[in-house]
Amino acid sequence: MTSRKKRSAKTGLAPGTLVHIGRETSTPLVSVLDYDTNHIREFTDLTAADVTDIIKTTHGTIWVNIQGLGNTAILEQIGACFGLHSLVLEDILNTEQRPKLEDYGQYLYIVLRTFEYKNREAKEKAESTQISLILGQNFVLSFLETGESGFRSVREGLLSGKGLIRKSGADFLIYSLIDAVVDSYFIILEQFDEKTGMLEAELADRPKPDILHIIYDLKREGTLLKRTLWPLREVISSLQRGDSALLNRSTLVYLRDVYDHTIHIIESIESLRDLTAGMLDIYVSSISYRISKEMKVLTLVTTIFMPMTLIASIYGMNFEHLPGSGLESGFYIALGAMAVTGLAMLAFFSRR
Amino acid sequence: MTSRKKRSAKTGLAPGTLVHIGRETSTPLVSVLDYDTNHIREFTDLTAADVTDIIKTTHGTIWVNIQGLGNTAILEQIGACFGLHSLVLEDILNTEQRPKLEDYGQYLYIVLRTFEYKNREAKEKAESTQISLILGQNFVLSFLETGESGFRSVREGLLSGKGLIRKSGADFLIYSLIDAVVDSYFIILEQFDEKTGMLEAELADRPKPDILHIIYDLKREGTLLKRTLWPLREVISSLQRGDSALLNRSTLVYLRDVYDHTIHIIESIESLRDLTAGMLDIYVSSISYRISKEMKVLTLVTTIFMPMTLIASIYGMNFEHLPGSGLESGFYIALGAMAVTGLAMLAFFSRR
Amino acid sequence: MTSRKKRSAKTGLAPGTLVHIGRETSTPLVSVLDYDTNHIREFTDLTAADVTDIIKTTHGTIWVNIQGLGNTAILEQIGACFGLHSLVLEDILNTEQRPKLEDYGQYLYIVLRTFEYKNREAKEKAESTQISLILGQNFVLSFLETGESGFRSVREGLLSGKGLIRKSGADFLIYSLIDAVVDSYFIILEQFDEKTGMLEAELADRPKPDILHIIYDLKREGTLLKRTLWPLREVISSLQRGDSALLNRSTLVYLRDVYDHTIHIIESIESLRDLTAGMLDIYVSSISYRISKEMKVLTLVTTIFMPMTLIASIYGMNFEHLPGSGLESGFYIALGAMAVTGLAMLAFFSRR
Amino acid sequence: MTSRKKRSAKTGLAPGTLVHIGRETSTPLVSVLDYDTNHIREFTDLTAADVTDIIKTTHGTIWVNIQGLGNTAILEQIGACFGLHSLVLEDILNTEQRPKLEDYGQYLYIVLRTFEYKNREAKEKAESTQISLILGQNFVLSFLETGESGFRSVREGLLSGKGLIRKSGADFLIYSLIDAVVDSYFIILEQFDEKTGMLEAELADRPKPDILHIIYDLKREGTLLKRTLWPLREVISSLQRGDSALLNRSTLVYLRDVYDHTIHIIESIESLRDLTAGMLDIYVSSISYRISKEMKVLTLVTTIFMPMTLIASIYGMNFEHLPGSGLESGFYIALGAMAVTGLAMLAFFSRR
Amino acid sequence: MTSRKKRSAKTGLAPGTLVHIGRETSTPLVSVLDYDTNHIREFTDLTAADVTDIIKTTHGTIWVNIQGLGNTAILEQIGACFGLHSLVLEDILNTEQRPKLEDYGQYLYIVLRTFEYKNREAKEKAESTQISLILGQNFVLSFLETGESGFRSVREGLLSGKGLIRKSGADFLIYSLIDAVVDSYFIILEQFDEKTGMLEAELADRPKPDILHIIYDLKREGTLLKRTLWPLREVISSLQRGDSALLNRSTLVYLRDVYDHTIHIIESIESLRDLTAGMLDIYVSSISYRISKEMKVLTLVTTIFMPMTLIASIYGMNFEHLPGSGLESGFYIALGAMAVTGLAMLAFFSRR
Repeated sequence: MTSRKKRSAKTGLAPGTLVHIGRETSTPLVSVLDYDTNHIREFTDLTAADVTDIIKTTHGTIWVNIQGLGNTAILEQIGACFGLHSLVLEDILNTEQRPKLEDYGQYLYIVLRTFEYKNREAKEKAESTQISLILGQNFVLSFLETGESGFRSVREGLLSGKGLIRKSGADFLIYSLIDAVVDSYFIILEQFDEKTGMLEAELADRPKPDILHIIYDLKREGTLLKRTLWPLREVISSLQRGDSALLNRSTLVYLRDVYDHTIHIIESIESLRDLTAGMLDIYVSSISYRISKEMKVLTLVTTIFMPMTLIASIYGMNFEHLPGSGLESGFYIALGAMAVTGLAMLAFFSRR
Repeated sequence: MTSRKKRSAKTGLAPGTLVHIGRETSTPLVSVLDYDTNHIREFTDLTAADVTDIIKTTHGTIWVNIQGLGNTAILEQIGACFGLHSLVLEDILNTEQRPKLEDYGQYLYIVLRTFEYKNREAKEKAESTQISLILGQNFVLSFLETGESGFRSVREGLLSGKGLIRKSGADFLIYSLIDAVVDSYFIILEQFDEKTGMLEAELADRPKPDILHIIYDLKREGTLLKRTLWPLREVISSLQRGDSALLNRSTLVYLRDVYDHTIHIIESIESLRDLTAGMLDIYVSSISYRISKEMKVLTLVTTIFMPMTLIASIYGMNFEHLPGSGLESGFYIALGAMAVTGLAMLAFFSRR
Repeated sequence: MTSRKKRSAKTGLAPGTLVHIGRETSTPLVSVLDYDTNHIREFTDLTAADVTDIIKTTHGTIWVNIQGLGNTAILEQIGACFGLHSLVLEDILNTEQRPKLEDYGQYLYIVLRTFEYKNREAKEKAESTQISLILGQNFVLSFLETGESGFRSVREGLLSGKGLIRKSGADFLIYSLIDAVVDSYFIILEQFDEKTGMLEAELADRPKPDILHIIYDLKREGTLLKRTLWPLREVISSLQRGDSALLNRSTLVYLRDVYDHTIHIIESIESLRDLTAGMLDIYVSSISYRISKEMKVLTLVTTIFMPMTLIASIYGMNFEHLPGSGLESGFYIALGAMAVTGLAMLAFFSRR
Repeated sequence: MTSRKKRSAKTGLAPGTLVHIGRETSTPLVSVLDYDTNHIREFTDLTAADVTDIIKTTHGTIWVNIQGLGNTAILEQIGACFGLHSLVLEDILNTEQRPKLEDYGQYLYIVLRTFEYKNREAKEKAESTQISLILGQNFVLSFLETGESGFRSVREGLLSGKGLIRKSGADFLIYSLIDAVVDSYFIILEQFDEKTGMLEAELADRPKPDILHIIYDLKREGTLLKRTLWPLREVISSLQRGDSALLNRSTLVYLRDVYDHTIHIIESIESLRDLTAGMLDIYVSSISYRISKEMKVLTLVTTIFMPMTLIASIYGMNFEHLPGSGLESGFYIALGAMAVTGLAMLAFFSRR
Repeated sequence: MTSRKKRSAKTGLAPGTLVHIGRETSTPLVSVLDYDTNHIREFTDLTAADVTDIIKTTHGTIWVNIQGLGNTAILEQIGACFGLHSLVLEDILNTEQRPKLEDYGQYLYIVLRTFEYKNREAKEKAESTQISLILGQNFVLSFLETGESGFRSVREGLLSGKGLIRKSGADFLIYSLIDAVVDSYFIILEQFDEKTGMLEAELADRPKPDILHIIYDLKREGTLLKRTLWPLREVISSLQRGDSALLNRSTLVYLRDVYDHTIHIIESIESLRDLTAGMLDIYVSSISYRISKEMKVLTLVTTIFMPMTLIASIYGMNFEHLPGSGLESGFYIALGAMAVTGLAMLAFFSRR
């Protein structure tokens, strides 16, 4: 939380001013893959000028991958290379965007988010990072918030030349990138599922109160996921409807497949949220039940022993004339009276 | 849970790689029914090559039924016979799909799910298996996750030649298969209904705390069913709208009938879920009521006996000069004082 | 519940097999009213053959009323007379349908349900029966699940010849029948309203726990009603939109009126359900409040008397050297100490 | 409730029979305002025949205001004057309608409802009355359920001749009437707002249990208001869309304004309902908290004093050989033991 | 609350009467900025006549900013200058409007609201003020409820001449104003976020009951924000759809950006509301748990000590023949009996 630049820092600035908002980030690492069915070239650690040079010599599809958003100038230059609108650059830098799709005619601008469990303050916490994608006629740009290497599987798929990816254009590449992002949600989903299962198991045994905090944490994560997944669904839904000329018909069926995955993830999360809520209800009910049982024992004990103690106390009074105190069997009569009282109370209690 | 291959196992693989995901399954058993109004031939234990041969010689409708998904190669070959898209094969193998309908032009791909109560770890648990159906111009493919023989009634109907099924084409066959799947939900529904009824009866008597776990189990099953039934409804709804040329007008009225059944099942499940939620409320309220009643008894007993015991204790003090301790009637006066105090407390309590 | 044939009894049968599903029913009683503006003929206790004869000689509108579904053959013959689809006959016999409207071109098939409070196992229970209506060019068929005479008011209206009904065609008759069904819901609504009012009154006084079961029963009935009323609304809504050529423009305004009634009933039921839910909340809260009040008294009594009793017990100890035990005023000093302690506890308690 | 004719009274009557349903009402008071930009005539206490006469001589716009529905015949005659459909007359008489708009081509039929707080059984209760409006080419009819003079401000505006109302036609008059009705909801809204504010204030102090009944009453009134306001919104929404030729374009912008007011009222009511629900939650939670605090004190007192009393009781036993009973300091040692025990219990309690 | 003129004050007035409704406001301060790409003139403290003069001499875009609504006459004159409809003036003066957009053909009327935390009665309270905007062909009017200078950043941007604002027309100016308003919500959002975070932290520790009031306050603020933000979203949504000819295509992409911000704010608020609700559940559950724990201790102590005290009391009875009272070891036997009883009770308790 501390290393986060807040959105309000920008309030009052003229629209169009480029400021990075969000988690700390690193200097951009720019790499390019230039490929067609038969050839592929990889360039790493590039400057904006290098990128311009590569563009001039390509005959196939170019994928520019930028990791880290820590230098506004480089991003601005690359944006200029590909004719990006200033609002797009602004949104790339503001890494608290919700997933969205914007059609700028010459290119599509797509914002996605990934989730990862990270160890923060000795606790596993779900963190979300932003991925911006640009799909042009024969180029794809990807901007990653963190310096960590993402999209490794896609890069390897391209270099190996297997599958359809080299034979297809920029739109199949963008599908592969989106597919990689959506796939990463399955890991989150499984962890979510596991936690819910553990909770369920604990609930079946005698539940402890930390269950409450686990339920709350699940709730928070579920809320976070929901906020990302619903707009993600919208993005992929409008992509697969094929409104843009930048997407070939043959790619749409693959996008429909990713769309299905998204729906599957959303529905699973919703079900798990639903179950978690149900568990809270059960937990609260079972606590009420335990209270009622303790209450019963307490009332039983009190109802039986209080009258008996009263009888004993009565014969403990220091009157000179205590009727029957001189009797041989007085003590036993008193005990008998107590026993009768105790049993009467017990009977009264049981009948209720 | 243990014998289940997880979806995440596939993360990072290139799209199009065929991997089975889900519960353990058996080697595919392939059988074919080739029929028209007057003739019918049945073939069992076939290889993919056998199927290709049969296709060449048919004049009517072919139904290829595949039970078990344990051999990727056979499925791939059969897929090739009928020109299935690689994504369809992927989805057939990933048996955690939600029900869906995909129109590939030459054929429709339909995913359905059935539910069955199975005995797992000494508990009845609802388990769901996937059924994939392909409807082509004159063929129907059905892929079942488990090796158990499903669709027995449809097969028998075909062999007996009664009813419309032999006189109609592949679209009526697909209707019959879907109808069989939907019919199987009525059994689930009745079990659900019975459990709810039992719960209701128990609630009317003095409810026990295991009611909570039954309610939670019902909730979970309801959530599971809902997740399957809502998309199933969508599938049948778009089928009966008749958008595809593969479905004849005369079959649509039958699909509308299945659609009605689906709606009926969904609404019944929703009502039962609603009632179950209501029962939990009632249960919690009745426990609160019981606590309040115990509380009342406890307070009554305490309020009456504590002051009486105090009086007895006071006259149990060992002072040499205990006023009235020498009186003949001292003891009775003290008893009287106690009785008066007790009755006063009772009166005070009742008036409140 | 016992005399009900379950839906699952039909699972696995070929589509199109006629089986009665639902509550026990009686042998069909077939009666016909054949009328135009000037003439009207009534026939009762007919066979299917009789009906065929009457059809041949009519010049006006025919209303065939069938009470009881206990003979599949008769129903099949009547169905054949009017060219009904086999699925329609199936649905007429399966009396657990939800209200629906199906347009078969030559005729409309309408399913409605009525509700009645019946005395079952010494309890008033809402029971629902199915009414199937067929509207053709100049005929109306009505199939009633029970042998009880329904639609008496419509029959009398026709025989008396008052109002528009004799002057209008089959579509006005069907409107009159639907209107009679919807009217019957107003009685249910008023009973529902009354029960809610009683509950409200009881809640204002000291509520008893049986309130819980009444609330649950209302919830169940509300759920039942909702399940019937929502699809009923849809049925009448699409009727009054006038999509079918079988309905004259002048009748539509009357159907709109019935539609209004349906909406009115639905909204009333929804409001009452809403209020009932609110009552449960209030009930639970007031019980919590009562617990907190008992708790307060208990704590007060305990806090005051326990320390006093301790003091008394201390001076009840049998030490030879009990300081002050020889004093003339010792007893009074001890009493004073108790009083002070008691008052101090009371003060401490009040200030909190 | 008692003086209300129930809807069920009408069940079974032929459609079209005129019966008054609802609260007791008075004999209709018929008055007419006949006006154009320059002239205005007012007639009061008219018969149906008088109205017919006035219609014949008018050149401008006629507003017929009928207060009270206690005479079916007069209403029928006036209905005949203006060619009203029998269903419209029925609906005017059935004063439990929900707000609605019906286009009969020659005229629009509008049902509205007003709310007023009335003193019933020593309690302020919100009561709703029905207002039926008919908009024709150059006439407006208004039917009020009660004999109380409504629409005073509109009448005065007309007589004074200020503003646009005299310069505009019947559609502006109907707008003015609707505006007057909607305005009356602002008073209800403010009372609702005030009550919520009072509740909020009381909640901040130590809440009492009557808060529950106030919350329930607010809930009921909110439910009532919602049932009226949502259809009212629909009515005005479709009016301002300008589908009817009876409404001039210049009037639509005024209707849009009324529509805005309706939305404003609905949203305010919804917010207040929301807050009220929140208050109930807070109330219940704060009671739970109070119980937990009482509980703590009770447990503390019991835990400290019970063991101390036990020690005292032990030394109160009448054994001849009571160890240490002869010691000079025995009493003080016992006291010390008690103090140590008490403090130990307190320490144990605090540490938890 | 006190200095607020209520809406009901207007009930009964003829439509079109100008009355200020809402919080106290100051005399209008009128200022004008007249600019094109190259020139800019600023005028302050103007009368309506001054504004008319400036209009006559402008060649570019005019922005009239009115701060304070305390003088109806001035507003009416300015309204006349720009041909505003009387309903627009009414709405400008009624500062309890919800955000809305109205297209009057010649101009658009936009109502927005801002939120600010203000110190009222020693408490931070969110207050909302109304901003009315008019967009004409080459002019923009802005009416602010309070005399405080808003839109400072926009004014400075215009005067400095940086960015696109001077090069673009009135529609870009209106975008800048809306953007400034939406930006101000980010501050609210962050405060909301902070409060929720604090609450979360407190909940993790031992929660105190004031948490309830903070939760309720958050709920109220959330409800307030929601009521403003949802219609705001609608306003910006219909603006960015570009239905009005007053908005240039190039401006729409900027409006889409503001729209995104609005969605982001709404979703964040909704998530926070969701979490707050979750916290209340957790709080209540944890209190129940605490009660159950106290209950357990209380029952334990009572169950152990009551029987022991009874034994001591029994041997405190003053019978002459107390069996064993003369034994040397009698005292120890009694102690032993007590210890056994106590341990038996403890064992019984633990096993449960």
